[in-house]
Amino acid sequence: MAYTPINFEEKFAAFTDLWSPRVIARMNTYQFKLVKVQGEFVWHDHPDTDEVFIVMTGSLEIRFRDGSVTLGPGEMFVIPKGKEHCPVAREECRIMIVEPEGVVNTGNAGGALTAENDSWI
Amino acid sequence: MAYTPINFEEKFAAFTDLWSPRVIARMNTYQFKLVKVQGEFVWHDHPDTDEVFIVMTGSLEIRFRDGSVTLGPGEMFVIPKGKEHCPVAREECRIMIVEPEGVVNTGNAGGALTAENDSWI
Repeated sequence: MAYTPINFEEKFAAFTDLWSPRVIARMNTYQFKLVKVQGEFVWHDHPDTDEVFIVMTGSLEIRFRDGSVTLGPGEMFVIPKGKEHCPVAREECRIMIVEPEGVVNTGNAGGALTAENDSWI
Repeated sequence: MAYTPINFEEKFAAFTDLWSPRVIARMNTYQFKLVKVQGEFVWHDHPDTDEVFIVMTGSLEIRFRDGSVTLGPGEMFVIPKGKEHCPVAREECRIMIVEPEGVVNTGNAGGALTAENDSWI
């Protein structure tokens, strides 16, 4: 049988809302999520896990209390467990996130930008 | 302070050997690895873990005993735990692999293509 690849472009074409991660794959107890972002998110942290951001298109600044990192296409960063961060994108930016199942996008902060968890496409 | 992104192009430029994964990042107990492949690998499986392949450039066929999947740039696939597979690339293909620390490239098969594990760049 011919198995089907997971195609990032096709998956990104399936949704338009910002800051709302869609799960595209599961590996053991981890999930791969795609998300479109623009503007400034909320300061938060994930007390129990590291979190990986990979930028697919656009540019993403991740602010920390002690500095920042700016990611372009083909770049990634591992946000350490418990490190407060605030993602910011001037223009729409497409990102892949890798993290354990059950991680909520706003971490410990909650608020209006909290997305439905475990939303698959 | 300005944190440094992990840039895939820069990392790929740092090695030339085939079938020899280089670790570029750690997230909890998982690793992100880059690898250049060409030709046919060995049939093997990883009895304890799923394994993610993401193609960056080129084309990768992953053969299974019951079929196959072919991945191009911007495509990924999750190889289920214990599923025998054999990666094949006609031309050089650049891949990112995500899997737990300690996973050996040839899994249960061993042999001449077994690479040094946990080799960071």
